[in-house]
Amino acid sequence: MQLGMIGLGRMGGNMAIRLREAGHDVKSYDPNVDSTAASLAELRDQLDAPRAFWMMVRAGDVTEQTFRELLEIADPGDTIVDGGNSNFRDSQRRHADAAEHGIEFVDVGVSGGVWGLEVGYCLMAGGNRDPVARLEPLLLSLAPEDGYAHVGGPGAGHFVKMVHNGIEYGLMQSYAEGFDVMKGSEFGLDLEQIAGIWRYGSVVRSWLLELLHAAFEHNGSELASISGYVEDSGEGRWTIAEAIAEDVPVPVITAALFARFASRRPESFAAKVNAALRNQFGGHAVRAVEQAKEQEQDPRA
Amino acid sequence: MQLGMIGLGRMGGNMAIRLREAGHDVKSYDPNVDSTAASLAELRDQLDAPRAFWMMVRAGDVTEQTFRELLEIADPGDTIVDGGNSNFRDSQRRHADAAEHGIEFVDVGVSGGVWGLEVGYCLMAGGNRDPVARLEPLLLSLAPEDGYAHVGGPGAGHFVKMVHNGIEYGLMQSYAEGFDVMKGSEFGLDLEQIAGIWRYGSVVRSWLLELLHAAFEHNGSELASISGYVEDSGEGRWTIAEAIAEDVPVPVITAALFARFASRRPESFAAKVNAALRNQFGGHAVRAVEQAKEQEQDPRA
Repeated sequence: MQLGMIGLGRMGGNMAIRLREAGHDVKSYDPNVDSTAASLAELRDQLDAPRAFWMMVRAGDVTEQTFRELLEIADPGDTIVDGGNSNFRDSQRRHADAAEHGIEFVDVGVSGGVWGLEVGYCLMAGGNRDPVARLEPLLLSLAPEDGYAHVGGPGAGHFVKMVHNGIEYGLMQSYAEGFDVMKGSEFGLDLEQIAGIWRYGSVVRSWLLELLHAAFEHNGSELASISGYVEDSGEGRWTIAEAIAEDVPVPVITAALFARFASRRPESFAAKVNAALRNQFGGHAVRAVEQAKEQEQDPRA
Repeated sequence: MQLGMIGLGRMGGNMAIRLREAGHDVKSYDPNVDSTAASLAELRDQLDAPRAFWMMVRAGDVTEQTFRELLEIADPGDTIVDGGNSNFRDSQRRHADAAEHGIEFVDVGVSGGVWGLEVGYCLMAGGNRDPVARLEPLLLSLAPEDGYAHVGGPGAGHFVKMVHNGIEYGLMQSYAEGFDVMKGSEFGLDLEQIAGIWRYGSVVRSWLLELLHAAFEHNGSELASISGYVEDSGEGRWTIAEAIAEDVPVPVITAALFARFASRRPESFAAKVNAALRNQFGGHAVRAVEQAKEQEQDPRA
């Protein structure tokens, strides 16, 4: 099948390779890659109608801009796929906007990271039946066996991917806390060894645990070269916002997101407030900022 | 190698089968199983010194009582293994008590549940080098390849298993919350289908997810026949207690344990207090107990 891949980054680039290896005719456009079409319009001209455009670009402004350009140059009957991590409400809106132009829109949640090229990508497709069915030769080539489903109508693909990533936050923080407790123990544990054996036969075995073992193997059990600063890219926040909209308690996913926030702040104002209050009501000593700085500079202090 | 398995429940029974299949000479004692030795003393007489006794009994009183009996009937040079989920501090104490009798003690964390017979059990051994080394033919037969390690000194095996289970609480609650959000969504999602595809290529793939898919497959996506009442058997509490002793924050594991507590209470006193306070300061309506009961009886109300 023919498609136009827009964005050849870590995800789109590997997906294009996997699709070509499966025999598909992949045209592409990426402003940072010379060998691709010079513009979206040129990409359109390289494709036979009805066309399939697959956006694999950063969620947010870049996706919105690319989508707007595609709406202008695409013909009725063409399909636009968003394989990025867009908010499902945006995808619902884009579906409606595309429909006004007679253009189909399909939102596909894509999981698998840089390992997807080899293993295949788990794909969660949202949209109307016909356009999703037309894309299935591509979807089945991208996914491992049984790793693809049409999960629901417009927006459902990105909704399910959003929750997938919210769960991921909780899973990661669960391992993170457990290994932190083991690191602080009296037993002098070898964390790489423990992550290693847990991969075989234990109840906590998972792909994330395999990645954690690889991280210990490559960086040492202290992870000395890795700063404890954790970004987030939206899906955890949206999962919690949706949980609030549904009145569903998600304490673990929320705590996992907030742990990421805390990881980015060397000191929190909340901690200052706590320290100040302990001092006020109980006369507990506060650690003055200057004193703390001196102690940092002189570890003997 | 020869050993005496004490306790032929779901874990011990399958472990005895796996050991026999590997060619080991397994004697056994279980007061509920006729074909076993009639007493611990008879089991002792069936084994050649130096003996290996493997306790696979409920943590707590039963383990303590069995351990005490073994101390009385065992000879110096014998080894007692505790493969249950004992608290690591108890295991440290039992190691010291056994040493006073010239008896070796090894604590082994065993993970794998009812699937271990087929897959093998992940084994985390704690204790001194020599007795652990003597047990290795058994440990290697019980574990899958690379699924066993001697993780540290006395108590370390049960410590690592405790943290393993604490992590397990967080992993389970992460999936639980995500599927709850999906169940409450506007998309009419097929949760069995989603758990199904996530097993292949997704970042959240894991053995627990495979079990969840099996649960949806057998019980339906509503889990209608399963009550939302979740027990705990200690390891989560101990993980949090140890985290507190180490000054390590474990918000996710804590929230996961507390979610289990909440699952056991149809109504909490905290919720009553909250409702009463909202009524006091803001005149917000409270839902009287009688009214709530009537509504339960008459869904039209």
